[in-house]
Amino acid sequence: MRSHGVVESTDGLPRRAEAVRSTNFVFPNDTNHHGTMFGGRVLQLMDQTGAIAAARFAHTTVVTAAMEAVSFQQPIREGEIIETVARVVYTGRTSMIVRVDVFADHQLTGERKRATTGYLTMVALDAAGKPMPVPRLLIETEEERADYEAAEQVRLAARRRTED
Amino acid sequence: MRSHGVVESTDGLPRRAEAVRSTNFVFPNDTNHHGTMFGGRVLQLMDQTGAIAAARFAHTTVVTAAMEAVSFQQPIREGEIIETVARVVYTGRTSMIVRVDVFADHQLTGERKRATTGYLTMVALDAAGKPMPVPRLLIETEEERADYEAAEQVRLAARRRTED
Amino acid sequence: MRSHGVVESTDGLPRRAEAVRSTNFVFPNDTNHHGTMFGGRVLQLMDQTGAIAAARFAHTTVVTAAMEAVSFQQPIREGEIIETVARVVYTGRTSMIVRVDVFADHQLTGERKRATTGYLTMVALDAAGKPMPVPRLLIETEEERADYEAAEQVRLAARRRTED
Amino acid sequence: MRSHGVVESTDGLPRRAEAVRSTNFVFPNDTNHHGTMFGGRVLQLMDQTGAIAAARFAHTTVVTAAMEAVSFQQPIREGEIIETVARVVYTGRTSMIVRVDVFADHQLTGERKRATTGYLTMVALDAAGKPMPVPRLLIETEEERADYEAAEQVRLAARRRTED
Amino acid sequence: MRSHGVVESTDGLPRRAEAVRSTNFVFPNDTNHHGTMFGGRVLQLMDQTGAIAAARFAHTTVVTAAMEAVSFQQPIREGEIIETVARVVYTGRTSMIVRVDVFADHQLTGERKRATTGYLTMVALDAAGKPMPVPRLLIETEEERADYEAAEQVRLAARRRTED
Amino acid sequence: MRSHGVVESTDGLPRRAEAVRSTNFVFPNDTNHHGTMFGGRVLQLMDQTGAIAAARFAHTTVVTAAMEAVSFQQPIREGEIIETVARVVYTGRTSMIVRVDVFADHQLTGERKRATTGYLTMVALDAAGKPMPVPRLLIETEEERADYEAAEQVRLAARRRTED
Repeated sequence: MRSHGVVESTDGLPRRAEAVRSTNFVFPNDTNHHGTMFGGRVLQLMDQTGAIAAARFAHTTVVTAAMEAVSFQQPIREGEIIETVARVVYTGRTSMIVRVDVFADHQLTGERKRATTGYLTMVALDAAGKPMPVPRLLIETEEERADYEAAEQVRLAARRRTED
Repeated sequence: MRSHGVVESTDGLPRRAEAVRSTNFVFPNDTNHHGTMFGGRVLQLMDQTGAIAAARFAHTTVVTAAMEAVSFQQPIREGEIIETVARVVYTGRTSMIVRVDVFADHQLTGERKRATTGYLTMVALDAAGKPMPVPRLLIETEEERADYEAAEQVRLAARRRTED
Repeated sequence: MRSHGVVESTDGLPRRAEAVRSTNFVFPNDTNHHGTMFGGRVLQLMDQTGAIAAARFAHTTVVTAAMEAVSFQQPIREGEIIETVARVVYTGRTSMIVRVDVFADHQLTGERKRATTGYLTMVALDAAGKPMPVPRLLIETEEERADYEAAEQVRLAARRRTED
Repeated sequence: MRSHGVVESTDGLPRRAEAVRSTNFVFPNDTNHHGTMFGGRVLQLMDQTGAIAAARFAHTTVVTAAMEAVSFQQPIREGEIIETVARVVYTGRTSMIVRVDVFADHQLTGERKRATTGYLTMVALDAAGKPMPVPRLLIETEEERADYEAAEQVRLAARRRTED
Repeated sequence: MRSHGVVESTDGLPRRAEAVRSTNFVFPNDTNHHGTMFGGRVLQLMDQTGAIAAARFAHTTVVTAAMEAVSFQQPIREGEIIETVARVVYTGRTSMIVRVDVFADHQLTGERKRATTGYLTMVALDAAGKPMPVPRLLIETEEERADYEAAEQVRLAARRRTED
Repeated sequence: MRSHGVVESTDGLPRRAEAVRSTNFVFPNDTNHHGTMFGGRVLQLMDQTGAIAAARFAHTTVVTAAMEAVSFQQPIREGEIIETVARVVYTGRTSMIVRVDVFADHQLTGERKRATTGYLTMVALDAAGKPMPVPRLLIETEEERADYEAAEQVRLAARRRTED
């Protein structure tokens, strides 16, 4: 029922998507007076890392078109180290869906928790600022297929909502 | 089919939600080299203004639990003035859904466009950082009812997705 | 004794001045180690909101020419929400005086206090960066007349000082 | 007619006030799209440097109580180097008036212009956050006397305005 | 001639050092008016990423004790994506030397250049802020050995200089 | 054994190098959760002040080419005032070595400590961004001669290391 044409496509070589990682300290100014990180600061890091992942995949400038399904599962605390991991998980004609996970490590124990997950839709722009086609995504592993399907669910839920 | 118990509730007085407005210049550092505003910077302003709207409604500290249905409809350009408008449009037991719109005004013409819209779920916290009940939202106007229903659609789409 | 020609003028329609509001959290980095907000950070918000009020009134770019009579009446504390409110209260030929008030709300009690007040003189610039005429200010209410007179006192005190 | 008791006082040694200097590049984010520095950014630097001058003079924490007579005489441009110079020029019982000048140097010609001048009133605070007495200012040179008198004019103009 | 006791040590297991990566856009505010990135901004990213690498290796808080041999080999330009890569390459008793490389990718061509390299000495601190022992570094590959020796040269050059 | 041709040169007048001073508060966001200032933030201030010192000496734009021998001798704490002092201490044909010291003053006692020292190599650029000759440094005092020699040692240590 899902189109797998993207994966089996032969016009142009499908491309593997590499994860982009960005590691940051949580600074005092990133946190509220409960000592937990502001959602808005997390969203900014997610967008920045997600845009880099899409720009690297498409070898062009990208802009954010939509963000869906962001869940803040665990609070992030001042003094923790966070790693933002972004990877293109779905491609359309001129757009890409990027999954972004934010992990927080406790500095002393080294214990890692997934703090936040979300999906960004990025559109590739040519030099004139017009949308341009992106490479097709190569999907090989089970994890890549699961991510692809989750992104498609996100896309369908968004479409269903706008049709309601 | 939707529970309107929230509106007609008698245990505790339902409360009107005031819009919170924040007006900002778009600075050079907020924009990419196409001169359009970074999505992440917009998201940060939406979260900050949304959190203020929820905190004022519930008279307590709030944290961001989720963000849904963010669509970047029009690019925002350097030199424009943006107004971020946030209002609580839906209340649960300890959570609120805040609708946030970002409008951009062209400085010379004064022409206004809606640039971005999204929905934030905020949870009210007591002094110990535990979720605490929020007042019920009073819904009176047609616009308030439409926003309430849109928020509920967002919430249902999110639930449907996690059930898939 | 005060020239009310501005108000009664018939060459060009006088324009009402809308208040511009900007709402912000007070972040850790905005405060000193007594936990109160730095004056300089307040001044920056006042200038930004004041410039937006003047730019919206004159539909053009503005620059700050002077600031007078800034009084920090109440300390603002970390964790409070502040609302900066700016409105054009006086117009000259190419300049406007903007009154800016900063209010701080205690997050839990919702109690509001006026924290800071001041007056900014803004000059309208055309596309070449030269001063250009601004619309005349329409003054209708008692509050508008009081603000106009207070701005004129500020302007006269400044003039008296430079003549001394 | 002005009390010079401050200068001739024998109870406690009057103290010379050293100028505090802070040198900064003008960054892209400090400037509007005419390429000139935002007034609010200048004000923030003036307040920071002024507070350091007062804190060094009084050997204690200070807070900003008022700002008067700020005139932006020359625009500051991106790529220029600015020097903010602050010196305590007047002392009351628990407050100090600090004169702050901002000079801008053109990077290639080295030509210097005075861009902005203003007066800050700072109050000294003890460890409990209460106002505490400050040392008396020693006035020796002609320039120091002129600055003292100018600060007194600023103070009187402010007082006259609040009495009107 | 070099002590390889660190590598062959048997008291406590030597630990492999993982590279920490942080990916960032180069923002307008990070660049001068030639459009190249400020050295100071690069140094700040190097220190932050280097501190995370050391903190992760030692599972504790670290402070920067020294920086040596920073060479800016290629300018970094606005609009490029930079990746800062840090890895512990040498361990003493309570200190670690971290090598940090900054790579810049051209967004369109994807071409990568090494822009900056440097060595940071980080000291591990216990909960009371006192220096505490760090794990010994496991050195297995040729690259790890070369990095270890380069770090030792840096350390010796620093020592020779302070003895002169 | 050192070439003093720079000092005795007659082709073009040697120029005295003025110290550039920048004074700053240490903000919450500048410090880790031990309350001590991040090395990276200190490095950024050193680079900015050092670049201003070099730009003023050569009356042109400069870029950072290298940083050597940075030692963090004393921690800097939140609430302290720091003064960054930079002076050109050595000149080559198109490059300058700038010594930068960071001093921290305890706000209450006024006690001053040297916190950090380091050496930056800056290259002068013409309008096209190409390296251009710099004036020769005039060395008159004992302190200037000592700084010159220390800078030369730093330069030699760097050269020895790259030859190893």
